Amino acid sequence: MFHKMIDQTRSKRPVIHNLTNFVTANDCANILLACGASPVMSYALEEAMEITGRCDGLVINTGTIQERSLQIMLASGKAANEKGIPIVLDPVGIGLSRYRRDIVTTLLKELRISVIRGNISEIYKLAQYSTRATGIDADPREMVSAASLDRVIDLLKDLSRKTSAVLVTSGAIDLVSDADRVTIIYNGHPMMRLVSGTGCQLSSMMCAYVASNEDTFLAASSATIAMGVCGEIAHERLSADDGNAAYRNYIIDAVYNLTEEELERRAKYEIR
Amino acid sequence: MFHKMIDQTRSKRPVIHNLTNFVTANDCANILLACGASPVMSYALEEAMEITGRCDGLVINTGTIQERSLQIMLASGKAANEKGIPIVLDPVGIGLSRYRRDIVTTLLKELRISVIRGNISEIYKLAQYSTRATGIDADPREMVSAASLDRVIDLLKDLSRKTSAVLVTSGAIDLVSDADRVTIIYNGHPMMRLVSGTGCQLSSMMCAYVASNEDTFLAASSATIAMGVCGEIAHERLSADDGNAAYRNYIIDAVYNLTEEELERRAKYEIR
Amino acid sequence: MFHKMIDQTRSKRPVIHNLTNFVTANDCANILLACGASPVMSYALEEAMEITGRCDGLVINTGTIQERSLQIMLASGKAANEKGIPIVLDPVGIGLSRYRRDIVTTLLKELRISVIRGNISEIYKLAQYSTRATGIDADPREMVSAASLDRVIDLLKDLSRKTSAVLVTSGAIDLVSDADRVTIIYNGHPMMRLVSGTGCQLSSMMCAYVASNEDTFLAASSATIAMGVCGEIAHERLSADDGNAAYRNYIIDAVYNLTEEELERRAKYEIR
Repeated sequence: MFHKMIDQTRSKRPVIHNLTNFVTANDCANILLACGASPVMSYALEEAMEITGRCDGLVINTGTIQERSLQIMLASGKAANEKGIPIVLDPVGIGLSRYRRDIVTTLLKELRISVIRGNISEIYKLAQYSTRATGIDADPREMVSAASLDRVIDLLKDLSRKTSAVLVTSGAIDLVSDADRVTIIYNGHPMMRLVSGTGCQLSSMMCAYVASNEDTFLAASSATIAMGVCGEIAHERLSADDGNAAYRNYIIDAVYNLTEEELERRAKYEIR
Repeated sequence: MFHKMIDQTRSKRPVIHNLTNFVTANDCANILLACGASPVMSYALEEAMEITGRCDGLVINTGTIQERSLQIMLASGKAANEKGIPIVLDPVGIGLSRYRRDIVTTLLKELRISVIRGNISEIYKLAQYSTRATGIDADPREMVSAASLDRVIDLLKDLSRKTSAVLVTSGAIDLVSDADRVTIIYNGHPMMRLVSGTGCQLSSMMCAYVASNEDTFLAASSATIAMGVCGEIAHERLSADDGNAAYRNYIIDAVYNLTEEELERRAKYEIR
Repeated sequence: MFHKMIDQTRSKRPVIHNLTNFVTANDCANILLACGASPVMSYALEEAMEITGRCDGLVINTGTIQERSLQIMLASGKAANEKGIPIVLDPVGIGLSRYRRDIVTTLLKELRISVIRGNISEIYKLAQYSTRATGIDADPREMVSAASLDRVIDLLKDLSRKTSAVLVTSGAIDLVSDADRVTIIYNGHPMMRLVSGTGCQLSSMMCAYVASNEDTFLAASSATIAMGVCGEIAHERLSADDGNAAYRNYIIDAVYNLTEEELERRAKYEIR
């Protein structure tokens, strides 16, 4: 079901506006090109609305926010809502500061968000649960496991109802949830956490998929599966001398080469 | 004729100041090092003039402009003009917003620019022609073809006369033009468009070549041929598992290893 | 002695806050992940103190400073001093402008810095010696050689006494000095200077080592040796077609794969 979305994204060639951080922007641009989309990065209030108005999707990533970021995000977000194009929100490091929390809260209040994607501790934080996450990685103690799965799914469905967004959490098990359905995804590799920005990259790629396909829930699931499968393909390519720098490149290369057949063959998920 | 400029750049080791975007800055720095130059990136009004005054060339790239960018670009540009060092202007995404268009227009009015390099749709926009470009890539419908070649060359020569700059367009065929001469270049590979920032990289490398050689038209032609040739060498290196991430690395590696002999042997161009 | 610090860093998993430039931020993030640390990058005054207060170490890098950088660096630095976590200062391009010089001077006056790391010309500048450095690379005429070694060591010890910081210079020979001791390191490869940001990467990795080990002088020495050894390992991996882009990846990969045994076996240093 999901595999056809690869080619749909490639044939639509959506232009994705990324309000993203300066740490992983280059990888986000290259993964968008790899999956058939066209990246635009800008960061000026003076052109935020106009540029978003020319695009097919908007990514809002809170990685390295600066003093005018909220204004830029709101202006772009309103342009996206007016045009009816999807917004993917990646609340990077929401647990790191009150400032980020307030920015995310304001964005959720003022904008219609299509997808919220983060690691499990960020989504927990978003859901007002207390987490013990340090930095921007998921706290291993809170990673989704078989034992906690039902509890987490309930949380995501509830959060989806409250925000009207599809919720996506990345971790040992990836989850994509709307108010009623959840896709439980077993693809991916733990080493992906040792490459800076695989989460940011997934958010950008997901926006391209959502912009190219009608069902947001299915498109978000498809992008998540695709990223996990590419993490596996890339990991199989690693030689003894390779490390996380090679892995970074191999993941993007795998997205570039991913076929419908390979996605179909490797996908490991269930929908509940 | 062009191949000797490689070694001249390597022996002069010019220091190039890059006012560039945060998406591709790292690749610009590494391609400058690969071709024998030394990169400086800065972005503060407080030091813009002083730093430019210590350099051998200035790149102005409008990729991720922010609220003080125009001021910084003007201050640096005036320091470059006073010192008599070349300015390469890359009007990234000029068609994306009125703000970018106004910035580029102001830069052209206030500064003496040595080279303007962009994709064909950006140069069209610059020439006040209406384009249908989306994003920062050239519109395929407006790519330089045999049929439209004469018309595009007339446009470039005219634009060169009006701006007193050498004009460079990247596309299926690359063109380098001053008011009288044009180099038509058949090197390169279409996959270069699937690596974020190959255009930005070329602009930075071109500035190093222009700073190291007396004839701006020939130096800009030389850099364009070199980049195209390196795109071909890098493409031949691609294995079945490689994608645009590997290609990004291979292009910079090819610049690092490029010899006069190989450039001479592979160069495909004519001068009219 | 030094080799055990690798595993100590890996088991402590320190979270390092990087106030760094946008050119090399991604490589700094990935080298931190490669050595077992967790990177946080932020650049907003509104959250600077709070984020630093959640971290185990702070890197201040003056690469692409902007108008609020000094404020952000001071706020974060004071939070680091209050919490008692180490600060590594990398005065990138201090010789490029009065603005950078003033920022570094202010930081040294207002903050307790644990380690100052730069290339030899930057450290000279810091010591108020006049240098003839252009750009951000060390001036070859001022690189540490056998002939000048004693003079440079005296300078570093004096500077260490005045700043109460460990001083680290990168060059043909690397030096790590406190007021009494100096480690003279013969590892590394000249081609490391042709990869943008190896210095920035070392500063970030060094902060992780210093945050994870009690003796700052030994931890800074250990990180410097590790980076040099990884530069050697990565250089041995280069094929005929590889250039500085491949080398960039191989260095980070070598950090990822570095073992205590290999560091012990390859380390070339003396302590005076």
